Amino acid sequence: MPVLALDIGGTKLAAAVVTAAGQVLAERMEATKSSSSPAEILDTLFAMAGEVNRRAALGWPELAGVGVSFGGPMDFPSGRTVTCHHLEGWQDFPLRQAVGARVGRPVVVDNDANAAALGEATFGAARSKPYVLYLTVSTGIGGGIVLGGRVHRGANSLAGEIGHTLVAPEGPVCTCSRRGCLEAVASGPAIATAARQALEAGEPSALASIPRSQLTAREVAAAAASDALAARVMSRAGEYLGLAIAGAVNLLNPSIVVVGGGVSEAGEALFRPLREAVARHAVPESARGLAIAAGALGQRGALLGAAALALTDQYQAW
Amino acid sequence: MPVLALDIGGTKLAAAVVTAAGQVLAERMEATKSSSSPAEILDTLFAMAGEVNRRAALGWPELAGVGVSFGGPMDFPSGRTVTCHHLEGWQDFPLRQAVGARVGRPVVVDNDANAAALGEATFGAARSKPYVLYLTVSTGIGGGIVLGGRVHRGANSLAGEIGHTLVAPEGPVCTCSRRGCLEAVASGPAIATAARQALEAGEPSALASIPRSQLTAREVAAAAASDALAARVMSRAGEYLGLAIAGAVNLLNPSIVVVGGGVSEAGEALFRPLREAVARHAVPESARGLAIAAGALGQRGALLGAAALALTDQYQAW
Repeated sequence: MPVLALDIGGTKLAAAVVTAAGQVLAERMEATKSSSSPAEILDTLFAMAGEVNRRAALGWPELAGVGVSFGGPMDFPSGRTVTCHHLEGWQDFPLRQAVGARVGRPVVVDNDANAAALGEATFGAARSKPYVLYLTVSTGIGGGIVLGGRVHRGANSLAGEIGHTLVAPEGPVCTCSRRGCLEAVASGPAIATAARQALEAGEPSALASIPRSQLTAREVAAAAASDALAARVMSRAGEYLGLAIAGAVNLLNPSIVVVGGGVSEAGEALFRPLREAVARHAVPESARGLAIAAGALGQRGALLGAAALALTDQYQAW
Repeated sequence: MPVLALDIGGTKLAAAVVTAAGQVLAERMEATKSSSSPAEILDTLFAMAGEVNRRAALGWPELAGVGVSFGGPMDFPSGRTVTCHHLEGWQDFPLRQAVGARVGRPVVVDNDANAAALGEATFGAARSKPYVLYLTVSTGIGGGIVLGGRVHRGANSLAGEIGHTLVAPEGPVCTCSRRGCLEAVASGPAIATAARQALEAGEPSALASIPRSQLTAREVAAAAASDALAARVMSRAGEYLGLAIAGAVNLLNPSIVVVGGGVSEAGEALFRPLREAVARHAVPESARGLAIAAGALGQRGALLGAAALALTDQYQAW
């Protein structure tokens, strides 16, 4: 039986009907209105859900369940949101209950990093790999751990927070107010800031022609193949990612590390230094046979992960 | 039904009959002869096993199974040893098969760090805690992860290797030949070396009266309550442990961190700076409610863990 997948993100809302094999039967996406309340967002989302159900010619009783990806921390056992850094009104919101009341089907809700991790593990780059470490590198750096097809969430539903690993003791201050976190030196904004600082120091670069305010990690990544400054900035970010991943590889001995999120689209300018740093810092026997891959699901990771949440029995004790 | 627990270590062999509740019905320990071959060690161990069975008045058919802790890396699925750093002849030795052939009962074999982790999770400091990170700090630094009562082993049976996390980029070279690993700055020998170096630099200390060659982490720990040099050396080791543990806490969000091994007997001289470093470096929400405790099983951790291996179904897929 297919499932309904819902994705509540800071910039977009998505709904899809997805089969157990990961085939998307119908899909709809909309920009998130940042002024909307949770109730308004759920109204929009359920109008979208109704539409994809109609397009897939399925009624609620024909759906095995509903999976929801939420763009912020969740308390998994209760299905309540903790907060959302991009939208108002989501402090301690009973999301699982609110969705369940509307659909009358089993509902599983998780944060977007865990959802994307499970999506890649079930349908994407980590398919058929038993032990998966997933990182998402974009505005922030988050992650998720999937062991034997199930998300490892930990005591406070917060497992996977690799973004706040200390990697640069003398580095810049992070959004979390500590110094030198991975997120402070390898996220999209950190890459853009490093490039801007090098430009302001007078270093020549093709990036100098881009207005400073429009310079993002995307432009740095695009220039890296032919521009020394851009290549060095991407390489530094890749090294820091590799250093943090090496520690996680020692601890978890995963079968695969999947790196998703916007910054992962930078390709080899990021992945080559990342792989080299993992090889340098991980226990060689733990890194033996380790695959390191870019996410295969792109922007759809969390949505397909929401489908995977609904398709697997996430509440089974282990 | 009780189980037979066997512990093959670099310095001692142990055998015990243990009930499902963790009660030791009979126990025997002997020093390991380092010149012994695997076959000779197994002969000694089975003589010990026969004796504890007699003392517990149990025959082989009355044992539910046999658990074995081995002091070196194992390939878990095959039950073969990889090697032993203290004993000869254990390269790729079929330990599970060799024990099984002698006892005709189900046999589970794992390395001593995983066994001790499971021992603490089942019978010790982490009893009833769902997500357990265990470290053993002694000659080296190893670890184990127990999730929902089962050891997480990873792709190459090497999960838990927290000792080779980079914590001191400018620090001393590790036994693994990389620089600045946790093991290189916080193991027993690292603590002794740091104390010796401070003494050789002329710093006054009560430790100066101990012959340098006899100065171990034990003496440093014992002096830490009243000696500034010893206190500073223990504190530094605790901080490095806390830094590595914080990264693991962010990644795994465990319910409890248990620190065992000889160095963990140092008490608050080690644990206070360790806890402070975890509080400083971990994501506050992940550290909320986190217990940090010394191992409760002492030298018996691996042996009781071997019993726990035999008592739980470690081969069930998850």
